[in-house]
Amino acid sequence: MTRNVLFAQSGGPTAVINASCYGIIKEAKKSGGKIYAARYGVEGLMKENLIEMTDIDDMTLEVLRYSPSSAFGSCRHKLKEDEFETVFKIFDKYNIGYFFYIGGNDSMTTANKLSKYALKVGYDIKAVGIPKTIDNDLPITDFCPGYGSAAKYVAASVKEMALDSDVYDKGIITIVEIMGRDSGFLTAASALAKDKVIDSPHLIYLPEMPFDENEFLKDVERAYSKKKKVFITASEGLKNKDGQYAYLRESSADAFNNMQMGGIGKYLEHLVKTNVEKRVKAVELSILQRSAAHIASRVDNDVAVMVGSDGVKYAMDGMTDIMVSIVRTEGGFKTSPVPLGDIAGKIKTFPLEWIDKYNRWVTREAIDYMLPLVQGEARVPYEKGLPKYVRFI
Amino acid sequence: MTRNVLFAQSGGPTAVINASCYGIIKEAKKSGGKIYAARYGVEGLMKENLIEMTDIDDMTLEVLRYSPSSAFGSCRHKLKEDEFETVFKIFDKYNIGYFFYIGGNDSMTTANKLSKYALKVGYDIKAVGIPKTIDNDLPITDFCPGYGSAAKYVAASVKEMALDSDVYDKGIITIVEIMGRDSGFLTAASALAKDKVIDSPHLIYLPEMPFDENEFLKDVERAYSKKKKVFITASEGLKNKDGQYAYLRESSADAFNNMQMGGIGKYLEHLVKTNVEKRVKAVELSILQRSAAHIASRVDNDVAVMVGSDGVKYAMDGMTDIMVSIVRTEGGFKTSPVPLGDIAGKIKTFPLEWIDKYNRWVTREAIDYMLPLVQGEARVPYEKGLPKYVRFI
Repeated sequence: MTRNVLFAQSGGPTAVINASCYGIIKEAKKSGGKIYAARYGVEGLMKENLIEMTDIDDMTLEVLRYSPSSAFGSCRHKLKEDEFETVFKIFDKYNIGYFFYIGGNDSMTTANKLSKYALKVGYDIKAVGIPKTIDNDLPITDFCPGYGSAAKYVAASVKEMALDSDVYDKGIITIVEIMGRDSGFLTAASALAKDKVIDSPHLIYLPEMPFDENEFLKDVERAYSKKKKVFITASEGLKNKDGQYAYLRESSADAFNNMQMGGIGKYLEHLVKTNVEKRVKAVELSILQRSAAHIASRVDNDVAVMVGSDGVKYAMDGMTDIMVSIVRTEGGFKTSPVPLGDIAGKIKTFPLEWIDKYNRWVTREAIDYMLPLVQGEARVPYEKGLPKYVRFI
Repeated sequence: MTRNVLFAQSGGPTAVINASCYGIIKEAKKSGGKIYAARYGVEGLMKENLIEMTDIDDMTLEVLRYSPSSAFGSCRHKLKEDEFETVFKIFDKYNIGYFFYIGGNDSMTTANKLSKYALKVGYDIKAVGIPKTIDNDLPITDFCPGYGSAAKYVAASVKEMALDSDVYDKGIITIVEIMGRDSGFLTAASALAKDKVIDSPHLIYLPEMPFDENEFLKDVERAYSKKKKVFITASEGLKNKDGQYAYLRESSADAFNNMQMGGIGKYLEHLVKTNVEKRVKAVELSILQRSAAHIASRVDNDVAVMVGSDGVKYAMDGMTDIMVSIVRTEGGFKTSPVPLGDIAGKIKTFPLEWIDKYNRWVTREAIDYMLPLVQGEARVPYEKGLPKYVRFI
């Protein structure tokens, strides 16, 4: 008897996470089994909050492919040992033989633990991790789907903001806060904005390099003395040499009143305003940088589909306890299965050798790495002049 | 002898202000005269900071059409009486017979004064105002180019943020701060985000309606009690019943530390956090809403071109002291010249009868007005996966 497929989404949304669901559904349809999605990740799974996607029509499936955010809902729940029994009861009830968990590092750890538990209790299930994160911080895989589109949004937005920021004939310093607690990949993508016309950003600050207030002010003063116009991009997760978040050291940190992370922009704005130049503006890209499907990268979307569909192929071939990693080839990208044990609990950060510390920039090698990921425009469907999206929660 | 053309940009940037320059240049090329642009508006004009655009090649001109922000720089300078002499000396030196000023209300006042001065001193110049503002607050004209694209960006972004904001299975309140000090048109455009899939925004606050903290909290509580998820859009310029900015009443206003306007989002976040729900997130769309050419409206771009080229036609026909206003027709839009005296110093706000006060929403009539302005995608050129833009400062 054909066994069924179940997938779920986890962690923060991206602009192409649903493209992986599209890939899973497209490929799994060939198996003849039923296709279920759990709403709200493993949290919904434990509550039996499932939705059957077997008979989704082609048009809706196409719209799903280009819809941003987690169309089935998400969670940040780490499965505890005593919760596995509940999960496997539901697997058994729905005859689930293939489980796909789309997410970042925590999700890979969950999929890994789940595989081990299955082995222990003798439940036959193929568990596959599908990578997704705008932070691009999973090891081994060339990149993580979601990163390419977030990078494209960041680069395009920095281009546009750079053109906007200095239209008046007077000094101005602009600071853009970009997501990334521990990984500077997304902030580094702001470097792609620079071209023959746009000389921004002038200074880039990544969490991989210890942040020092005095050095920062010197950098800004030096840049400002040249053109009276400085455009700065900074990771939300900048840390001092002791590894503490830079902006939390401020006694007035509470005044910034930010939920979760964020606030480094306002903190740097304050530093600049009191030390260098009064005309300073901080912009926080906020949740748009991970959800702006309207400018998603086609390459990113295509690869997101591929990790989903290849994940199903690997599972149907009998593989389990793997993550579908991405390999860069001469012509583009292909996938390769890697043991989840090699991924879980490990973090990739922006390579130190790609940081041009003196110029507060990134190297040519970094640009060469990032550029292929932002190529092409995803074919988002429009209706009444606006993108048309779908969701199932 | 053929007299020359000079144009300049003024006020805040938009995503299509350069499309009007494209229209001016395209049409003025037919006259055989020279075409100059002043950098940094009338400020640059007085410094003789001019650039000749007569021989701009077609390819660069096409890129200019789709480039955001003021490609020739801008200013917020209001010409004083004793500065007219300087301006007219430069007009005379360059044999300027046609002057086009692209901007909002202040720019129309400047063009109006300049026309009167020309009459007084007997200098023959045709002075024409070309409307541009994301605030959409110029009277008579059906809309202001720049508004359509900003509206499209706001609506698309609210769609995407709405999908992103509530992926977890727990309560969340999201507040989006949108530009507009006195005019609610741009915030009202967030209503276009709502469709069969996306039920956001739930509450819309415009500066045309007095803001009351207690009413606001009641609105939010009522909406929250239904779904535990509330998506709010609010104009930066919300005012209380005495006409004072709502958020400046807070004694802790300084802590928000914002340059220029902005801050209402953080203020509402604070209100919600201390009274309704701790999980609340404020997002400020900031300068991206006026510069995001990558999602500019094609209708807006086309009409921006038209007000530029028709402005040249009207001037060449001998008209002066006019603004090129936009008239809505059955098939689209056309232009009509209106006396600058009817525009200067007057402001259009969002019609009160388009506000659904009880539901904190806008009426069907408002939607019908806004929807045609966001139609179509401007054909932004791409290079290496990113929009390609040009500027001349």
